[in-house]
Amino acid sequence: MSVYLHDIPLPEAQARLRQALQDAGLWTVLGAETIPLDENALGRVTAQPVWAKISSPHYHASAMDGFAVRAIATHGALPSKPVTLEIGSEAQYVDTGDPLPDWANAVIPIENVESLDELGKITTEIRTPLSIRIRASVPPWSHVRPLGEDIVATQLVLPAGHVLRPVDLGAIAAAGYQEIEVARRPRVAIIPTGTELVPIGSKLKPGDILEYNSLVLAAQIESMGGEPTRYPITKDDFDTICERVQEAAQEHDLILLNAGSSAGAEDFSAKVVQRLGTLLVHGVAVRPGHPVILGLINRQSKFVNRKSKEEISTAHASTWPLRDSAQREMIPIVGVPGYPVSAALTVDIFVEPLMAQWLGRRQNELQTESATLTRKIVSPPGDDDFVRVALGMVGDKLLAAPLSRGAGVITSLVQADGLALIPRGAQGLEAGEQVTVHMYRTRAEIERTIFCIGSHDLTLDLLSQFLTEHDRRLASANVGSQGGLVALRRGEAHLAGSHLLNPETGEYNISYIRQYMPNIPVKVIALVGRDQGLMVKHGNPKGVRNLEDLTKLDVQFVNRQRGAGTRVLLDYHLNLMTIQPERIVGYDQEEYTHLGVAAAIASGRADCGLGIAAAAQALDLEFIPLFQERYDLVIPKQFAEGELLAPLIDLLADHRFQQAVSQLRGYDVSVMGKIILED
Amino acid sequence: MSVYLHDIPLPEAQARLRQALQDAGLWTVLGAETIPLDENALGRVTAQPVWAKISSPHYHASAMDGFAVRAIATHGALPSKPVTLEIGSEAQYVDTGDPLPDWANAVIPIENVESLDELGKITTEIRTPLSIRIRASVPPWSHVRPLGEDIVATQLVLPAGHVLRPVDLGAIAAAGYQEIEVARRPRVAIIPTGTELVPIGSKLKPGDILEYNSLVLAAQIESMGGEPTRYPITKDDFDTICERVQEAAQEHDLILLNAGSSAGAEDFSAKVVQRLGTLLVHGVAVRPGHPVILGLINRQSKFVNRKSKEEISTAHASTWPLRDSAQREMIPIVGVPGYPVSAALTVDIFVEPLMAQWLGRRQNELQTESATLTRKIVSPPGDDDFVRVALGMVGDKLLAAPLSRGAGVITSLVQADGLALIPRGAQGLEAGEQVTVHMYRTRAEIERTIFCIGSHDLTLDLLSQFLTEHDRRLASANVGSQGGLVALRRGEAHLAGSHLLNPETGEYNISYIRQYMPNIPVKVIALVGRDQGLMVKHGNPKGVRNLEDLTKLDVQFVNRQRGAGTRVLLDYHLNLMTIQPERIVGYDQEEYTHLGVAAAIASGRADCGLGIAAAAQALDLEFIPLFQERYDLVIPKQFAEGELLAPLIDLLADHRFQQAVSQLRGYDVSVMGKIILED
Repeated sequence: MSVYLHDIPLPEAQARLRQALQDAGLWTVLGAETIPLDENALGRVTAQPVWAKISSPHYHASAMDGFAVRAIATHGALPSKPVTLEIGSEAQYVDTGDPLPDWANAVIPIENVESLDELGKITTEIRTPLSIRIRASVPPWSHVRPLGEDIVATQLVLPAGHVLRPVDLGAIAAAGYQEIEVARRPRVAIIPTGTELVPIGSKLKPGDILEYNSLVLAAQIESMGGEPTRYPITKDDFDTICERVQEAAQEHDLILLNAGSSAGAEDFSAKVVQRLGTLLVHGVAVRPGHPVILGLINRQSKFVNRKSKEEISTAHASTWPLRDSAQREMIPIVGVPGYPVSAALTVDIFVEPLMAQWLGRRQNELQTESATLTRKIVSPPGDDDFVRVALGMVGDKLLAAPLSRGAGVITSLVQADGLALIPRGAQGLEAGEQVTVHMYRTRAEIERTIFCIGSHDLTLDLLSQFLTEHDRRLASANVGSQGGLVALRRGEAHLAGSHLLNPETGEYNISYIRQYMPNIPVKVIALVGRDQGLMVKHGNPKGVRNLEDLTKLDVQFVNRQRGAGTRVLLDYHLNLMTIQPERIVGYDQEEYTHLGVAAAIASGRADCGLGIAAAAQALDLEFIPLFQERYDLVIPKQFAEGELLAPLIDLLADHRFQQAVSQLRGYDVSVMGKIILED
Repeated sequence: MSVYLHDIPLPEAQARLRQALQDAGLWTVLGAETIPLDENALGRVTAQPVWAKISSPHYHASAMDGFAVRAIATHGALPSKPVTLEIGSEAQYVDTGDPLPDWANAVIPIENVESLDELGKITTEIRTPLSIRIRASVPPWSHVRPLGEDIVATQLVLPAGHVLRPVDLGAIAAAGYQEIEVARRPRVAIIPTGTELVPIGSKLKPGDILEYNSLVLAAQIESMGGEPTRYPITKDDFDTICERVQEAAQEHDLILLNAGSSAGAEDFSAKVVQRLGTLLVHGVAVRPGHPVILGLINRQSKFVNRKSKEEISTAHASTWPLRDSAQREMIPIVGVPGYPVSAALTVDIFVEPLMAQWLGRRQNELQTESATLTRKIVSPPGDDDFVRVALGMVGDKLLAAPLSRGAGVITSLVQADGLALIPRGAQGLEAGEQVTVHMYRTRAEIERTIFCIGSHDLTLDLLSQFLTEHDRRLASANVGSQGGLVALRRGEAHLAGSHLLNPETGEYNISYIRQYMPNIPVKVIALVGRDQGLMVKHGNPKGVRNLEDLTKLDVQFVNRQRGAGTRVLLDYHLNLMTIQPERIVGYDQEEYTHLGVAAAIASGRADCGLGIAAAAQALDLEFIPLFQERYDLVIPKQFAEGELLAPLIDLLADHRFQQAVSQLRGYDVSVMGKIILED
């Protein structure tokens, strides 16, 4: 049995699934259940319209503390010509909410009444007088909440398909209900498969892959209104997977079979679907996530398990749920790709519409905004391409900075402020072009985001953490010091971190700022002084001590990218020492962050690299300090004076923040906050 | 002990509460707890920054199915000059995700490889050849996911104060955690008080008030991330309420004492707070909701309960929770006003900031939009006034139509699309003025909303229900037929329901349309034919048979408002019959809907009224049919041809909808969908 993967366009894949579900009678609300009207009803979806059973108020209620009267009896009352009403037949004290006596049709608030005693004198027993005196007439029904003011019996209180909010629960109760009929939550089985998978928290050896997709998928199902079941990890074994799928099919409405959806040696998902039911789609032209499988599984499949069928049905007899409407014989299955970003997006794209249909609610939708791309995006023209982007409002422009495209980089989804869609047919977009972004965050959140670009430093992570306490988010993109200044010139960031040494003057940053962003008034503030040095493995096996040692043939170096301040520093000192870069093995091997360099050394990909002490410490490397340098924040004046960045600038004088930074090895906070330049 | 209510401005009230909580050490995260990293962590708030413990991937992983090689060994390979690599020392098969052998630094995808057997011939054993032949070189690290590609150990994965989403759970797992430290959920006691309160579902007698505020409040607390406890109803008894509050204080972080917050005879809340702690605020200049109480309760109060103190502490000894940090001696209490709209808004205004602080997250915020008011709003200048509004996009204008101002009208909060804020200092706003609206719905939802204004008819409720199946919402405001045409002229609605009889021609609507909205091309479509007649109580006690009988002195009539089609119909027939309106008792008593008229009769406020059969049926009244009339939909041409209204127009030909309408008494669907006029 061979399996091939043919990508089909996204709308076609969605249409095939929909058609198959319609044919199977599954493109509908799955079923309804009656639940108590309590706070657990929050977020459930009404299965029927709610028509009021009773009116609210269900009687004429006083809207004030005061006296119920006949309005006609007050006619002619004037300040100079008061009217007196006897308690009992003409007036009766009522608290707010009390029913009016049959004969009354208005209420006079207590503060507009003179209470009289048996002698006709004003009394302090304001609620229990013998008579009252009033000096103004009242129209009928004043200060009365008439029957049905809020709800009239039989009116529509809520339509079917409504997702219940707190106030809805009150209105349903007011309409006479203590239970509510809601759509039953779809039960979704999540089956992680893969011999290489290990549960989260396991001690890892190379090749082990932490199984956390099922966690993300379960949480997605939960937030869509479904009931997820996470199955234990199933090894890559065709029969075992078939058995597990068939078992899950008995108790669930949908199966998510995670990974094994491609066409590799151990990719069994498509074959499993073919064996147990109908394979509708294998491969969708969507990126990330194209090896998606869509199919239907027969519940009463003829597939014979290793356990006998009897054994399985016995095992589940007690928990077999009441089936809704027709006995359904098929249930859908989605083969979810293994890379975490692909997995999450596949569920958003294919499962959310299904859950919406099954619950009878509208599909959740993201708001869209048009944003300006900061970088070119290349996109395969055949695919609908979803690009994760960071968003920032710089001046009055909404900017979208593409994040990592790697389908394995789940942090790109965590950091994403939105998804930019490059539709099928487009070959990509140029920097500066407009792109439609599906927003993960509100516009207001984006407007609180400080967009920082340039050189990477670990203190930026700390700054980010401290800023959340001051109602700001820090989004930082690492493009090296020069890249940051260029971005500032283009108006694409609020500030840049920079540590560019001028080899002629020994001064940092200023000459570069004048060169890269002339005519833009800036404020430059020192963030930290920091050590730069060589990172090597424990014990320094290659015996590296200085830059000269980099030219040894057995020393594999790892460099920073061109434009990075650390690269400038290296080149400056190589030049001073007249060392030709070509003599350094690995000079062309570039990493984009200090931690990237450290990771390359820790993993054995390289023997040494130039970087900061903090990065070495983080990955447990040895650090040989060579130079000290200053790391500055470069801020265009218009932003330096604005409200958005004020908390960031304040933090540079914050003792707690300074202390947190000084606890990182190799940092000198004595310069922090010093104004280096102010135009 | 006397209690007075002095309204203070909202910001001052908020500041007093904040200051008192700061002084008591309660303006902080309450505490943290470590929970398993599973789908239940969704929505919880990180109590600490999450720094990566491990890198991901934690080894160099193949990104493809293929062969791991040394990149240098592929140098020089060309289509015409293939390079052969031995399996074992020079090449090794790897599946996606497999670790690279120590010696390898690149992967060649399987589809770019020729697999060779022992004879050097191409073999079908593509994964287990003896050697491979390649015809292109690869750069180092191609098709490899290097260690740390996603996460580098020590980097910041998530800041503290972050509300966990599905993908965050994956990233935290990838960073090496199987547990997560989150802010503990604040425990909130909700104590409903009031002798007149009865539980939902109770059989009601006049004066009984359904207690559903605690349900709404609990659901609000739940959705803010707290843990609500709903207490049973407590009668209006000072000692009992004190006892209940003190009991709740032992186990909770906040008490919401519902109702009794005003200054009436049975309003004990302020006195309770004074007795058990400190009253900070009684009365806030905010509308609705001004009788708000803010205070602090001593946990170890000296107040002596009817039960002995020993008894109480014994009762709770077993469930006494571990206290966070310092043993806190005070807890805040909010006296929540009794009207449901006031109650819900009070919790939004005063409790949400507290919950945000206690959970360490940002405050939830509503997006704001500027909208054009359709009606004048009068507002007390001393108050911050929150006006519930329905929103609609008519043409390119976002319109805000004020809904009922009654604090008892919970359906106004259910129907509200947003809250318009009339700030303190403003005396209100004129129709046509711009107002800032805090949005309950997204802009996209508003853009799917059909704004219907004019005469009320029960079929509009059915239409609303059917429209939800077609991705539309119907927002209808009842201002009578003429009011609807005026609104259309002003561009303030998409369509109007109208049944205006021309007394000269006997024709409906057309002459009025020409008069009220000249120069606006319209399409007029018949919705239904319907009976108009007199509604009377069962048994028709006053023996009303026709309009002549309305002039009997013992017959109390209830009328519709001026401009309503039913009012026109009545006046037309009174005129034909030369009956002077002044002769009808109650002619001036106006209701705005058919159901309002029916409710007035059902409740005994009136003996009869003119209206439609469906309304009589709804409230179980007798109906004496007198006339038949046609009810049309009047639609400006620009909207009649637009996409928004298409599903509504289609529904008029939908058999299911027609059948649903025909099941209401007194409706004739034979005219439904007939085009009456098309400009």
